Order: sequence, then structure tokens, then C-alpha cells
Amino acid sequence: MENGNTSGDKSSVKPIRCKAAVSRKAGEPLIMEEIVVAPPQPYEVRIRIICTALCYSDITFWKLQVPPACFPRILGHEAIGLIPVQVEELRVVESVGENVKEVVEGDTVLPTFMSDCGDCADCKSHKSNLCSKFPFKVSPYMPRYEDSSRFTDLNGNTLFHFLNVSSFSEYTVLDVANVVKIDSSIPPSRACLLSCGVSTGVGAAWETAKVEKGSTVVIFGLGSIGLAVAEGARLCGASRIIGVDINPAKFQIGKKFGVNEFVNSKTCENKRVSEVINEMTCGGADYCFECVGSSSLVQEAYACCRKGWGKTITLGVDKPGSQICLDSFDVLHHGKTLVGSMFGGLKAKTHIPILLKYYLDNELELDKFVTHEMKFEDINDAFQLLIEGKCIRCVLWMG
Amino acid sequence: MENGNTSGDKSSVKPIRCKAAVSRKAGEPLIMEEIVVAPPQPYEVRIRIICTALCYSDITFWKLQVPPACFPRILGHEAIGLIPVQVEELRVVESVGENVKEVVEGDTVLPTFMSDCGDCADCKSHKSNLCSKFPFKVSPYMPRYEDSSRFTDLNGNTLFHFLNVSSFSEYTVLDVANVVKIDSSIPPSRACLLSCGVSTGVGAAWETAKVEKGSTVVIFGLGSIGLAVAEGARLCGASRIIGVDINPAKFQIGKKFGVNEFVNSKTCENKRVSEVINEMTCGGADYCFECVGSSSLVQEAYACCRKGWGKTITLGVDKPGSQICLDSFDVLHHGKTLVGSMFGGLKAKTHIPILLKYYLDNELELDKFVTHEMKFEDINDAFQLLIEGKCIRCVLWMG
Repeated sequence: MENGNTSGDKSSVKPIRCKAAVSRKAGEPLIMEEIVVAPPQPYEVRIRIICTALCYSDITFWKLQVPPACFPRILGHEAIGLIPVQVEELRVVESVGENVKEVVEGDTVLPTFMSDCGDCADCKSHKSNLCSKFPFKVSPYMPRYEDSSRFTDLNGNTLFHFLNVSSFSEYTVLDVANVVKIDSSIPPSRACLLSCGVSTGVGAAWETAKVEKGSTVVIFGLGSIGLAVAEGARLCGASRIIGVDINPAKFQIGKKFGVNEFVNSKTCENKRVSEVINEMTCGGADYCFECVGSSSLVQEAYACCRKGWGKTITLGVDKPGSQICLDSFDVLHHGKTLVGSMFGGLKAKTHIPILLKYYLDNELELDKFVTHEMKFEDINDAFQLLIEGKCIRCVLWMG
Repeated sequence: MENGNTSGDKSSVKPIRCKAAVSRKAGEPLIMEEIVVAPPQPYEVRIRIICTALCYSDITFWKLQVPPACFPRILGHEAIGLIPVQVEELRVVESVGENVKEVVEGDTVLPTFMSDCGDCADCKSHKSNLCSKFPFKVSPYMPRYEDSSRFTDLNGNTLFHFLNVSSFSEYTVLDVANVVKIDSSIPPSRACLLSCGVSTGVGAAWETAKVEKGSTVVIFGLGSIGLAVAEGARLCGASRIIGVDINPAKFQIGKKFGVNEFVNSKTCENKRVSEVINEMTCGGADYCFECVGSSSLVQEAYACCRKGWGKTITLGVDKPGSQICLDSFDVLHHGKTLVGSMFGGLKAKTHIPILLKYYLDNELELDKFVTHEMKFEDINDAFQLLIEGKCIRCVLWMG
């Protein structure tokens, strides 16, 4: 593997100084500072972020004190950007590295944390979205070059990347495997949602589960991912969308996303949630989505998906080492399916443009996800909103 | 629920006396004795068994000393029969009960332990083969009538049914939900295999997994079910069929069924079987079938099916309460599917005729499964052959 840190002597290649919100210490406010963004290496592009949204994974890795957390880091991974033209403010700025053919200066792009290299067996197969050339990991570096960051602070110290995106910066560098060219006419604050959260939820219903018209869906956890699953299920024509949460206020929110029934898992008395769902659905739901990240809840979901054809789809991340345990008799005799869904099973470059088309056709609703819009400078306030559960998606506008 | 024991006063309805192999005590030789087979009740048919094969479940329930085992019982569930005409040996014999429309006297039928009522939500759906009107259970009685047996011994004592079939008898009574009408020109010793074992294995590859042409398949356990999976995978065009067993002699047998590579799980040295398979397949097989009935082996199978699209299919029955435990991180991040397959996911009345057509077209090979043919009277010898692993399928001919 090459080390892409060495930029060599190319005279046209210039770093960019810009503003970024740097996470210097776990759980402490991000610091808005000037940083230096190196030019793109071969197969990379340097983009200007138009706006970025907050996703709960940003909070998780901001709070986390142990690896794969690392500091100082530029978080953020749900965004939209523009590949700037080469001459910008009288400086020569190279935006597109060597060997990049699928995008050019002036293009509007969505960064995606899931790679889509287009070359490996997975990217070439319609059955997988798990790029095997650049497999998912929470790395502090660029995916293609070993131990290689494009960010430094003004003291020349390395700033780490996050999820192949690092969008809490006016400029960032992405591997071409993490860039999806999109129609520039789509409102940025809507399109950016498909960079992570909405794609993950909608895709889980649409692509992983392939929810059928008229079916019954249960969603465990009505956070933003769960609501995106509801939107996906609604898009697919599900008749009954049952939300399960410990917070009854979530039902009011859920209604806007097609959730038409609600179970408060805190007040099931002596019954297990799965028993309540089995009764409500006369034997189980067609699809159960676990969006909380609790293995025991996956087991509940499995227990209340329909014998014969029920599917349980996991989207939530539990603690490392956590086990999902299923009775072997049930697995054999009930004909149910258990499957995990990363990024909604979507192949970024294939499926995001389709979902954006659904948005333009007024089939996929994105507006309702955006509860707040703020200036990038107010990112710490936005963090608080998300931590306190007061927003679904808060979009931060650059410049 | 009616109690079908009461046959009333219908003068045309006569019991039949015939020979059966009765299992009177766990693990003790079956006793060939005269029994009385009552006439069919509404929705039932009384059939004459042409031949029956032995399946390992017969051995399991013959040895088992605790419920759901029960004695005295007529075991056997893989067979072929004929619906006799009404006048037989000058006696009036009613073979087809009231309300039975899909079969008539003279038809050749396969009994199936899995019901296919045609009326319930599952039977009407193309997605399920788990009849919800008569769900699978190892009951000692007829499925439609409570606590109702059609068998008595010559002392008038009840003999119990087994798996809705009880084919170790010259005559047996079946619910119409457990009868598939077939083409009478097919050799009975071949057709009968589709009544249980071969359907279970072939169906798991063909219908549950939908094995794709050119794919890589791993089969854990090369017993008759595992070999039937291999035959199904071969039929579907799999390129690599890797057999895993602790007995190397199984590889020689497996070759006839398309198994073209072998792993002896006893001699993997310090590696887990899944590691060996992952190395052999450069990252995992497309489909892994667990045919042994070991939850830890299901976990191994899951560990060596391909990230992104791998499917693990369970066919084996483990001890009650046994748990299949999977790492929640792996479930989420690897996009693999876990699914159980009962009776190969086949809908008996839809799929068995199709598989028989494949046999007639020389696509599905059945002959190689039949290693022994014997007289029904020699059933205890046949039990020994199966226990000692010396046969794949032993077919017992009546009369």
C-alpha cells in the first residue's frame, strides 16, 4: 500500500486552509479552528461541503474514550458537497486527483461512509453492498493509503478522518469509492440525508427486506433510523406499521412517518413485547426491524415475526461481543429469516440516485426529517439538540 | 374439534385387518402383528402402502423414551401408497372419506408428514410451507380430530400414529392434507423418497436457498439429508460442493452426489472448520447447510458463509432448548442470512409433482439414494442397517 502523505513537488497542487469543527477530546465541545486540507491523491477528490447533517454515530464517536475512537478528529459523515473548479479565489486548487474519471470539477456529490469501488466481487454483484476492496471500518485514515490523513492543524499535527467522510469541515478529501455524483438541482439540505441515515432506514425496508405491499411491519426504536425505516415501509406500501418505543412521545412523531400503531415496551405489564405484537398481528408481523442496537430486542423481534415467511432485520449496533441467541428448534421449524442491514443494503452509486428520483417524484418524503437548520458555527448547539432527542435531523450550513 | 373415533352405524364402513410392524417399547425390535385399521373419517383416506423407506427420524422416535415418544406406535413416514378400490377381496372397503375431492379410488399417492391443507393463510401463500391449520407436531393422533387414532391391536387397544403417516403398516389412514396425488407410472421405490428425506434435502437447496448456478455450497454432515442437499445443489448447477463430515468414507459416497471437495472436521488441527472453509473459498461459501443438528455447527456454518450474500440454512434438529448464538456485530455488518428449512421449504402438493417431473426428465437423480431393498417383514434388519450407517435409503416392499 502506498503512503499518500507524500505530495511530492507538483507545483499546481496546493493545500487549502479552511474552517473545521475539530473534536480534540472525548465529550468536549468541538473547536472551530483553521485547518489545512491537503490536495487529493490519485483516486481521491477534494470537495467543498455545502451542508452536513448530524447522525447519532457522530455523537457515539465523540463521546467514546477508547479505540476505535481517536483524537483530534474531524467527525461528520452525512453531507453534500461540490467539487470546486480549479481556479478559486485566484489560487490554483486541484480538486480531482489522478485516475478519477467518474466526477469532474463542478459536480455535486454525496459522500458515503460505505465504499463502492465498482471493481471488487461485491461491488460487481447485485447481491452485496459490502465493498471488499475497502471494507467497512472506523478508520482514522483515508481508505486507499496506509496511515494517511489529508488534515493537519496549524501546528502541522495530523487530524484524523472519520468514516471516510469527515464532513465537519469546509473542505474534505474523499476516495472516489466514497463519492456519488447527484443531480445538482436537488435541495442540498434534503439530498444530504441520503448520505447516511435516511438511506440506512429506507434501504433496510426497500432493499434488504423488500417490504411487500399490504404487509405488516414492526419497528423497534423510533429514533431517526427507525423513522426512516417507517418511511421506507410506507414507500413500499406496508399497511400496518407498528412502532415500539419506551417513549410515548415518539408515537406522535412516528405518525408523520406512517407509523399507525404504537406499543410502549415499558408498559406491557407481564407480557413480553413479542407476545403483545403476536396478539396484535394474530401470529406475527411480516417484517421486524431492530433499530435500537440491543441483542435481546433482536430476539424479541425474531419471536414476533411471522412463522413461514417473517423476516427480522437488524440495523442497530450493540456492545462489542454481544450475542444474539435463538432457539435452534424455532430457527428450524419456523422458517423465519434473520439478516443484518448495513447502509440499508444499498449500493451507494446505484441506489442513491434512484432514491433521489423518488424524492423528486414526491414518493419518498425527505422534508419531514429536517427538524432544524443551523449555521455550521453552531455545531455544538446542534450536538446538544441531538443528545437531548430534540431533533430528527439538524442540517448545518457552511459559509 | 370432533372426536373421529366414533364411526357410527354406517353399514358400508368396514375396518381392515392387516399386518403392521408395531413399536411397543423404546429401542426394542418392532413386532410384526395383525392390527385393525378403522375406516377413514371425513377428509381422510385409507391407503394401502406399496413400499416404505426408513428415515432417521423413525430411529430417533423408536429409541426415545420420553415424550413426544409414545408406545405402542406405528412408525414410518416416507412411503408411497395406493387408494384401493371399494370392493376388495369381496369385502366392501371404504377408502375415501366424506368431503375428499382431490383423490379417488385407484390413485397413487405420496403421504407427507407436512400438511398442505390448501385453505389457510400459509398454504395460500407462495412464501410458506408451514400449514397453520395443521401445524407440524409429532402427535400420536390424526391431525383433524382430537385424540383420535385409526389403529387398534387385536385386543382393542389403541396404537398411536406417527408424523401423520404411520407407514410401517399394510394400510394406514391419512388426512387429505397429507396426501399428494402422483403419476402412477413412476417406480414406487423412487417416488417414495420424495415423501420425506430427498424432498427435505433437495428442497433446501432448490426452494429455501435457491442455489444459483456456479455457486459454492458447503454441506455439514453427509448423511442422507446432506446427500440430498448435494443432489439439490448439483441440480441447481452449483460448481463447488464441499462436504464436511467426521467420517472420510462419506466422501467416497458423496462423490456420487456431486460432492467434489471434502473437509474432515476431525482433522482440522488447530483451526476451526469455518477457518478452513474460509481459506478454501477465499472468504466464504455462498450457501452453507447444517444437516447434523448441532447448534455449534450452525455457528460454524454462519462463520464461513460469504459476507455480503452468504446464506446459512439449518436442516438438523438439535436437543430441545439448544441455542444458536451469533455475534451481533457479525449479524449486522456481514449481511448474511440465517434461515431454517422444514421439508426443504416445499409445499407438498405443488412441489413434489415438479420434482417427480425432474426425475422423469433425468435431471433429478433418485436411483443412487436407494442402496437396499428388502421385504417389509425384514424391517428390524433394515433398522440395524440404518443405525450402523450402512445404507442411505432402504426401501421395504409390502406384500
